Amino acid sequence: MAIVVGVGMVPFGRHPDKTVADLGTGAVLAALADAGLPWRAIEVMHCGAAGAGLTPGTRIGAQLGLTGIPITNIDNASASGSSAFRLACRDVDSGSVDIALAVGVGKFGRTLRLDGGVGAPEPGTAEYRERQIGAMQGPLPPAGLFAMRTRRRMYEFGSNLDQFAQVAVKNRKHAMLNPYAQMREPMTLEDVRNARVVADPLTVPHCCPVGDGGAAAIVVSERKARELGIAPAIRVIASAFRTPTLAGVMNAQDADTTVATVQAAYEQAGLGPRDIDLVQVHDAFTVEEIEYCESMGFCERGSGEAAVERGELSIGGRIPFSTDGGLLSRGHPLGPTGLAQVHETVLQLRGAAGQRQVEGARTGLVHMVGIGGVCLVHILQRE
Amino acid sequence: MAIVVGVGMVPFGRHPDKTVADLGTGAVLAALADAGLPWRAIEVMHCGAAGAGLTPGTRIGAQLGLTGIPITNIDNASASGSSAFRLACRDVDSGSVDIALAVGVGKFGRTLRLDGGVGAPEPGTAEYRERQIGAMQGPLPPAGLFAMRTRRRMYEFGSNLDQFAQVAVKNRKHAMLNPYAQMREPMTLEDVRNARVVADPLTVPHCCPVGDGGAAAIVVSERKARELGIAPAIRVIASAFRTPTLAGVMNAQDADTTVATVQAAYEQAGLGPRDIDLVQVHDAFTVEEIEYCESMGFCERGSGEAAVERGELSIGGRIPFSTDGGLLSRGHPLGPTGLAQVHETVLQLRGAAGQRQVEGARTGLVHMVGIGGVCLVHILQRE
Repeated sequence: MAIVVGVGMVPFGRHPDKTVADLGTGAVLAALADAGLPWRAIEVMHCGAAGAGLTPGTRIGAQLGLTGIPITNIDNASASGSSAFRLACRDVDSGSVDIALAVGVGKFGRTLRLDGGVGAPEPGTAEYRERQIGAMQGPLPPAGLFAMRTRRRMYEFGSNLDQFAQVAVKNRKHAMLNPYAQMREPMTLEDVRNARVVADPLTVPHCCPVGDGGAAAIVVSERKARELGIAPAIRVIASAFRTPTLAGVMNAQDADTTVATVQAAYEQAGLGPRDIDLVQVHDAFTVEEIEYCESMGFCERGSGEAAVERGELSIGGRIPFSTDGGLLSRGHPLGPTGLAQVHETVLQLRGAAGQRQVEGARTGLVHMVGIGGVCLVHILQRE
Repeated sequence: MAIVVGVGMVPFGRHPDKTVADLGTGAVLAALADAGLPWRAIEVMHCGAAGAGLTPGTRIGAQLGLTGIPITNIDNASASGSSAFRLACRDVDSGSVDIALAVGVGKFGRTLRLDGGVGAPEPGTAEYRERQIGAMQGPLPPAGLFAMRTRRRMYEFGSNLDQFAQVAVKNRKHAMLNPYAQMREPMTLEDVRNARVVADPLTVPHCCPVGDGGAAAIVVSERKARELGIAPAIRVIASAFRTPTLAGVMNAQDADTTVATVQAAYEQAGLGPRDIDLVQVHDAFTVEEIEYCESMGFCERGSGEAAVERGELSIGGRIPFSTDGGLLSRGHPLGPTGLAQVHETVLQLRGAAGQRQVEGARTGLVHMVGIGGVCLVHILQRE
């Protein structure tokens, strides 16, 4: 199994003076320093980035030094960094290399723009018709979809909006303890209530910000970990990847894909929700953390709101979620987000998370969803 | 080793009424029909596309049916399809799945636009300065670079421009025999001479067109091939991937990366240039086919021009290059190009390439280069 020996980040936020390549290079240098390895030790690199321009990985590699290694660029939307991490782990697991690097980058400033290079489709073109069909089939943009999912839970379980707002307040509290987080101003329930409405009933703090940042992780084989004298080892004991099934799409529930992916990860690791000490989740919208908390088996369907209210998902609670602030407050520059989750989990499993340390954390789960429904779950465990 | 059991293409050209997802779906359906496998048999999918919008692979998967499989989108510029093919082969080689799909798509019409979603950088931004530094370090766009490389060979080896033009004429002759090719009008040396100049001394036919298209390949494990009764098997006996080293960049020679990558592929396969029966190469510009022919060990440095003139790189010649017309005439919609090369090679190794069949072809080499310098080489062999 792949062993994580180094993690690094460029704090998420606004970096107008840095290019995408600068952000990636900064994250890789931090991960190398953390691992105590030189750049030339890296045998393969996977770069996750969404809408970050042409082959950002090779631009990062060029800044670090041209060593001739394979560099693959992955664009799996929000799950790009997680996909890069999975490929790095597989390269090590398959025995093809001993040291692999995953890096994620994103630079969006204050506005998400993801036209992917072909530009906005012009009326009359095939792409234009495709988007119109998409608009008929489901609500876009995402805030609209998650507003409907929030409303659905309010109807189905009698939840109130403040319960969802508690997710934003909790994750902000966590972010205030995290120097890598983008949103660290204090925020009360009142602040969430009174903020501008994005998609009724969701106000701004119910939705994650985009931004700029980089994150990286270095994984090595068991053999190399022994050679480097890594102890205790933090192993990637599960890597699961699923896309939606027809049933999931008919339910308009990304959560169904999460159920399948988490189940596969639990099976790979040979454990269940009781064995997990902390979770990093795709909380792009407050309702998601509540839904996924249930999908992962941490509480019964319909009881996620109460679990948040009782503080069970807070640091110090039964199963801390989004200990670094989550997408909602640590930030979400797409490409690096999944690797920021790995960064946080590794710090926690090392007992090096400072004021936001989860006591005795040994096993952490990271979960990402990307548009189009890709879902990745990794489980990391300290030996 | 991975065994290729199915290949499919949507002919390269103009498909204004098809979306990127339509092109990919068409290619996958053709590959499934070729393999005699249903879509639900596919266990993992890798989609290569450059600047094709958000997560084209998941859009293709949604058209084909939501089966829940992992779908990874790779953007390695011109080498995106080749990178997807490599990942599919590795998934099979590592034993994680028995049946893997690689698909490549691209839709550019007549104009390449690859701003990758972040838009043209505005003056004063970090990205703008990065591009300016890039412009100082090396000539862009690519036609300018390859015009200089052509001039360099004319200076160094006394080549004349007609020798380079012969590559375009030869590849057009091959394309005229290929129903999947984009450019099939007859073309003479005179036509190449008299065409519009793109970057002196290169006229239009010295440069490949972009366009629209899709290509796909299905690979299976040895175990699955036996179960399916595949015979004779076409194996992927080498998969090599390199990026530039500092020495290569100082020489401004992509060819140096090709030397390293081809050498690694020969070592993996345990063979050399004498064992290769045909080659598909990254002939985006005429000079490239000549350079790479030398880099691959098929002729001495400085003798590529003469080899082309003597017909050695033609179908029927000593070592046929670009038997499907190459990037120059089969076309180059970026994402699918590497998989179109696999498609052509598989048809040739099956003896099913019709009028363009290379007699007795048993071992074929495919080679792609992507901007930023990634280079991939695969060797396919019929048992």
